Amino acid sequence: MHTPGAGISGYALLLTVQIIFLIVYAVFVRYDDSLLPKNKDATEELEQEFVEKKHVPSYPHFQDIHVMIFVGFAFLMTFLKKYGFSATGFNLFLAALVVQWAVIARGIFDIEDGYIKMSLDDIIGADIAAAAVLISMGAMLGRITPIQLLFMGLIEIIVFAANEHLQVEMMSVTDVGGSITVHAFGAYFGLAVSFMTRPKIEQNNAGKLEGSSYTSDIFAMIGTLFLWIFWPSFNSALLDGADQERAILNTYLGLAACTVTTFVVSAIVSHENKLDMVHIQNSTLAGGVAVGSVCNLLIGPHGAILIGVIAGILSVVGYRYLTPILTSKLRIHDTCGVNNLHGMPAILSAICSAIYAALAKKENYHDSLTDIFPAMNDMNSTVAMSHNGTSVVGGFGRSALQQGGYQLAAIGLTILIAIVSGIVTGLFLKSPSMRKLTKEEHHDDSTYWETPATESA
Amino acid sequence: MHTPGAGISGYALLLTVQIIFLIVYAVFVRYDDSLLPKNKDATEELEQEFVEKKHVPSYPHFQDIHVMIFVGFAFLMTFLKKYGFSATGFNLFLAALVVQWAVIARGIFDIEDGYIKMSLDDIIGADIAAAAVLISMGAMLGRITPIQLLFMGLIEIIVFAANEHLQVEMMSVTDVGGSITVHAFGAYFGLAVSFMTRPKIEQNNAGKLEGSSYTSDIFAMIGTLFLWIFWPSFNSALLDGADQERAILNTYLGLAACTVTTFVVSAIVSHENKLDMVHIQNSTLAGGVAVGSVCNLLIGPHGAILIGVIAGILSVVGYRYLTPILTSKLRIHDTCGVNNLHGMPAILSAICSAIYAALAKKENYHDSLTDIFPAMNDMNSTVAMSHNGTSVVGGFGRSALQQGGYQLAAIGLTILIAIVSGIVTGLFLKSPSMRKLTKEEHHDDSTYWETPATESA
Amino acid sequence: MHTPGAGISGYALLLTVQIIFLIVYAVFVRYDDSLLPKNKDATEELEQEFVEKKHVPSYPHFQDIHVMIFVGFAFLMTFLKKYGFSATGFNLFLAALVVQWAVIARGIFDIEDGYIKMSLDDIIGADIAAAAVLISMGAMLGRITPIQLLFMGLIEIIVFAANEHLQVEMMSVTDVGGSITVHAFGAYFGLAVSFMTRPKIEQNNAGKLEGSSYTSDIFAMIGTLFLWIFWPSFNSALLDGADQERAILNTYLGLAACTVTTFVVSAIVSHENKLDMVHIQNSTLAGGVAVGSVCNLLIGPHGAILIGVIAGILSVVGYRYLTPILTSKLRIHDTCGVNNLHGMPAILSAICSAIYAALAKKENYHDSLTDIFPAMNDMNSTVAMSHNGTSVVGGFGRSALQQGGYQLAAIGLTILIAIVSGIVTGLFLKSPSMRKLTKEEHHDDSTYWETPATESA
Repeated sequence: MHTPGAGISGYALLLTVQIIFLIVYAVFVRYDDSLLPKNKDATEELEQEFVEKKHVPSYPHFQDIHVMIFVGFAFLMTFLKKYGFSATGFNLFLAALVVQWAVIARGIFDIEDGYIKMSLDDIIGADIAAAAVLISMGAMLGRITPIQLLFMGLIEIIVFAANEHLQVEMMSVTDVGGSITVHAFGAYFGLAVSFMTRPKIEQNNAGKLEGSSYTSDIFAMIGTLFLWIFWPSFNSALLDGADQERAILNTYLGLAACTVTTFVVSAIVSHENKLDMVHIQNSTLAGGVAVGSVCNLLIGPHGAILIGVIAGILSVVGYRYLTPILTSKLRIHDTCGVNNLHGMPAILSAICSAIYAALAKKENYHDSLTDIFPAMNDMNSTVAMSHNGTSVVGGFGRSALQQGGYQLAAIGLTILIAIVSGIVTGLFLKSPSMRKLTKEEHHDDSTYWETPATESA
Repeated sequence: MHTPGAGISGYALLLTVQIIFLIVYAVFVRYDDSLLPKNKDATEELEQEFVEKKHVPSYPHFQDIHVMIFVGFAFLMTFLKKYGFSATGFNLFLAALVVQWAVIARGIFDIEDGYIKMSLDDIIGADIAAAAVLISMGAMLGRITPIQLLFMGLIEIIVFAANEHLQVEMMSVTDVGGSITVHAFGAYFGLAVSFMTRPKIEQNNAGKLEGSSYTSDIFAMIGTLFLWIFWPSFNSALLDGADQERAILNTYLGLAACTVTTFVVSAIVSHENKLDMVHIQNSTLAGGVAVGSVCNLLIGPHGAILIGVIAGILSVVGYRYLTPILTSKLRIHDTCGVNNLHGMPAILSAICSAIYAALAKKENYHDSLTDIFPAMNDMNSTVAMSHNGTSVVGGFGRSALQQGGYQLAAIGLTILIAIVSGIVTGLFLKSPSMRKLTKEEHHDDSTYWETPATESA
Repeated sequence: MHTPGAGISGYALLLTVQIIFLIVYAVFVRYDDSLLPKNKDATEELEQEFVEKKHVPSYPHFQDIHVMIFVGFAFLMTFLKKYGFSATGFNLFLAALVVQWAVIARGIFDIEDGYIKMSLDDIIGADIAAAAVLISMGAMLGRITPIQLLFMGLIEIIVFAANEHLQVEMMSVTDVGGSITVHAFGAYFGLAVSFMTRPKIEQNNAGKLEGSSYTSDIFAMIGTLFLWIFWPSFNSALLDGADQERAILNTYLGLAACTVTTFVVSAIVSHENKLDMVHIQNSTLAGGVAVGSVCNLLIGPHGAILIGVIAGILSVVGYRYLTPILTSKLRIHDTCGVNNLHGMPAILSAICSAIYAALAKKENYHDSLTDIFPAMNDMNSTVAMSHNGTSVVGGFGRSALQQGGYQLAAIGLTILIAIVSGIVTGLFLKSPSMRKLTKEEHHDDSTYWETPATESA
């Protein structure tokens, strides 16, 4: 039996959080100066006109990512037979909550005149941050209350923003598709939470509703396909020009190759050589994660395909053999298999980024070498100095090999930070004052939702 | 029993309408001059090249709105357990019909050389006009025949176009997101039709199929999420530059805050503090409506959040308490609750627009003040004179306070026009010659569709 | 009974194909030079900056088409009651496979320095090529194994690429929306395969699972609507400027008129004058096909509407009367009715293109006449000479009437090539070594997929 009273106090808390957001925005958040109306200077009028009248150029990319976060993740999680309301509803609720928080948490590292100045880039960044939290939610899907999601989201976004700043600005690591800062972070944070809130041995069996129905599996494909389609936008959103176009091509090819491989491996490892919808829904996307950190590098079309093939194998094998072991031996439940879709492919991506960084040469990359790897600038370069005003760990003047080392350090450090903060979060979520789900309430919409009495279909 | 014969004559009429459209287009509609091939003048060739070779800049915005109209509205209305064919099918039919009509009805106010000259802006406008009709359809969902929809759509588009022209061109009111001209108009037109076609007292109970199934509720979330995602495009489509980016940010934040609030209030007011899918599917969107008329103004990120919070409360409370009263006391049925999603949030938006307009100052808005509020131009301004060639009601030279007054007048006048024209339309739809649905035929696909004999799932 | 062993060897073959792709890419495929990093020349720096920093302009168009291929086609094919896993899964698998192959097959006609040089245009082209294969899959839906799909896709892409090159480059035919090269080709290739693999007379009845369920019909509408919405992008992707905007408007109007007409004709021809979901799901799209080859020509808004109306009639009548005859008399099964959605409307489009080409005049088209119809350039034009370096069949200096003749030749030749290559492919697919589905395995996900034991909804 669940206790409605717990609900009310939880939701009251949620309202308080929303009101605190309102106050923080009123005090600290403003539009970026570029969004404010200006006087048209007579001499500049024509030019001004040109600049003002144009459409916001990265908006289509933003909208693609927006679809991934709010439709892609939502429907990907509808695969459980009786958890579709929660999958789509809690995904919407959690993402809507944490994007507001992410603008603040990420903005702290870039305060101007005492204010966080918002522009389109900040909501792109907020949507990307939300992805990390939704990945963690995937690990815990069906075993976590909305109020636990609230706390998890609030804590995770802070650590996410700090780690993102650490890796990208201070460690000066390249990770345009967020494989390190988003996918690895979100996956291992969620798995650490899952480990801390693991069931007792006698309750370690699968939940009675922890499976799909024919219809729910097709709903989940909506999520898969929109994620698959727009992944090139996710990986290329922060780029432009030739870099952006390379990132698009590499992600496209990586996904295509990973998808074909997923079908092959799924049939090979599955019962009676039949295809398993879990693999098709998830592992087909692993190629997008695996090319994430290297998609703007000169990996070549064949490099993208190779990485996609490896990611497909890794992910399906993970679902088939590793997940059952983690569940049975370590009691780490991972409802959506985020280790196989996000975690391991992200590690693969980071390793690839270390290799390609170590091999990066001025004669191939020309002047874009130091755009992509700012820490490879000369020690005294003025460009280097002005690089976002943060001091780069280890200073500038890195060699290619050193940059490769930093790429490896980044994934190691990120996983460490994710696990430690996930453990702390898990401890908090299992504190006695927190309402927790019983085994019977798992993976069941009717715990938190009014559901139609009978399926009068 | 329905009478198939009625069907044939109705569909024959529909074909006639389509053929009349064809003739009207042949006689009166042409491509805009900018869409016609031109000779490349040798001296202008380079510049020409630049202009001709670019992609149509507002096309991505158009496509986002196109998704909202044809997937968003369609699937939002699939929540009824046995009305999914009609929701997606009639939405497609009605929208495809009225967009053709809207190009003509809106084009009448902008005739050049005796022709309506079409460009991309006109089909953006046509899609937006279709939204108003689909909102009205939402009020009547399941209780209206396709031929009644045909007549309702044809009449509504004419009044819509006239009212839009009145408010935006003649009253010179700001309403970039269409909260006044689209949402309020569509909602109160539909509710007036619903009032005129209200059931007898003894038939005022809910229809036997007027409820959702587990699957239909998840289908409806497809609609909700695509509307939610692309709402920033709807509100910002007619803008560019900094104005557009502000509109995007404000709509994004308004929706996020409204969504969190909707979850809180839904749990608080619902039975056993469980979440109600009706609220999640609909009230989460109210924030988009509520910021519609002000999203390009300097409301600040916190202003957007505040408006979103209020909209969420207003909408859920409306669903929970107001709709049942309207149904039981006034017998105004509102199947989709358009009063709560579109009507009341639109009034909120109009009131906010009056407040922000009254507070608008030259030192904040600089030269864009008179771009946003053209009637605040000087009496003798040449810019003012050339403002679309229409004479502005009350003339130019408005003060901020006066502009605020006009914003209030706009919503009042729009609701009045919507209700009066809705009443007339309702009278027509219940005329004896018109086929009407019986209570038993309500909310039932099998009335107009061949449906699979059994659910062999 | 199916034989799992056959599965393994088939999937091993598929893996081999993927590895061959990898090798071919490594040896022959490179990024286009425009995608490679460059040194910023000091004198050109500003201009360079401008060029490098912009977003890839045709990317939003690409993404719209990407949605059509991977969500549109996928869900359009989910209408069968027990074939949703295969529809969405095999669509994904087959498209992911053939896009990799299409880059190679199409690239062969444009080799530079011994390499196929990839850019965004190539993956737009690859997605469009995939459409042809998915159309053929639609004809065979539920009666073909994944390994047969593999072979069909590999063969079809080669012939597709050759025919596309023949029509567009060598015959110099206009076909911006691909009605001739994609829709007609894909449909008649698929129907030829279907004819060659036709059942014995005693097995010519409908499969026991060859029908829809209430839920599957609504899933299919997801596909219909996304195809409908993004069709203007499909038809206009390869254009820019005024040509692009005309193509958008004409496709929009053609679809709208076709949709209204589809509802009318569906009700008129169907049992008890009820609407048939098959027509609504498919024939509403025929207008997009029918305007495909002419959407950039000066057909006028009314021309688009007229073509849409005719397409709607043609397509519904085809579904209602022609398909049953083809099935019963010729035993050509056409599960999705691709002849009615793609085949006949494409022939209509080609005929229209012949008429409009024959009527094209310099005084209407000005300098764009020879952009649209390059073969109408003067015999000795230098522009003509440089037209992709291919020699135009019949030479330059065509009259309008001659161009019209070539348009007709293009559709005739395309259908001939499609049928001949389809027959050869069909012969191969029915070779004794190939695993084939038995009648009992038709239209059944459980043949190749692990399906949930019971529908515990």
